Amino acid sequence: MDRIPIMKIGRFLLVSIQVELQDRLALALQEDLTQRIADVNARGVLIDITSLEIVDSFMARILADIASASRILDAETIVVGMRPAVAITLVELGLTLEGVRTALDVDKGLALLHESTDEDEPEGDAGGDGS
Amino acid sequence: MDRIPIMKIGRFLLVSIQVELQDRLALALQEDLTQRIADVNARGVLIDITSLEIVDSFMARILADIASASRILDAETIVVGMRPAVAITLVELGLTLEGVRTALDVDKGLALLHESTDEDEPEGDAGGDGS
Repeated sequence: MDRIPIMKIGRFLLVSIQVELQDRLALALQEDLTQRIADVNARGVLIDITSLEIVDSFMARILADIASASRILDAETIVVGMRPAVAITLVELGLTLEGVRTALDVDKGLALLHESTDEDEPEGDAGGDGS
Repeated sequence: MDRIPIMKIGRFLLVSIQVELQDRLALALQEDLTQRIADVNARGVLIDITSLEIVDSFMARILADIASASRILDAETIVVGMRPAVAITLVELGLTLEGVRTALDVDKGLALLHESTDEDEPEGDAGGDGS
C-alpha cells in the first residue's frame, strides 16, 4: 500500500491506520492529511489505531507531528482506539504524546470533536452508549 | 494483520479495507461484522474500498455475502469509495455486485444510510458539498 485512505465525515476527517507506518508512508499520510484539511476546510481529524499492537517512538512522533500540523491549519486531532497495552508501553517508554488528545473509540472521538468545534452533534446517543 | 478494525459511528459501522482480503481475513471480517451488528444493534454498514485497485470475483462475492448477512440482521450495507477503474473492471468481468448499494464516498454513504434508516442526519451539509 502506498497511501492510507482518508475518509471524510461531515467537517471531520477519519484515518484508520492498519499497517506499520514506514518512513515514506508516514510522510505521505502527513502530506495527504494536511492537503485534505485545507481542501475540505476540515475542523478535526480522527486517527484510529485499533489495529496497532505497538506504538514506538517513531510512531508517537508521527502522531504528534500530524497533530501539530493540523493545529496550525485550525483542525483538532484526536487519536482513538488505543489498546490498553499500547498505553502501558507508551508510559514505560516515557512517551507522553504531547499535544495529542485521545478518546476511547471513533464515536467518543467524534463527540469530542463536535463539542470542541461547535459543529452539530451527529446523533443524540453518539459516544454515549459505551459500546 | 489478522483482523480488519470495525469503527462505530452512531448506529452505523464503518470498515476501511486497505489490504487484499485473503480467505481467512475475509471470513474473519464477515464474522466480526455480523457479531458487531448484533452487539451494538447497528442499522447500517459502510465498507470503504478507496484503497483497492482491483475487485475480483472473490472480493465481489465477499462484499455480496457481507451485504446479505447484514440484511438478515436488519442492517443495510453500502460500499463506498470505489475507483472508476474498479467499476469498469467489474462490468468487464460481468460482476454486478448483486444486492450491494454503493455511494461515492463515506459522507454520501452516511447520508444514504441516514435517509433509508430514518436515523437523524449528522449535519445538514453531510454528503452535499461534493468533496
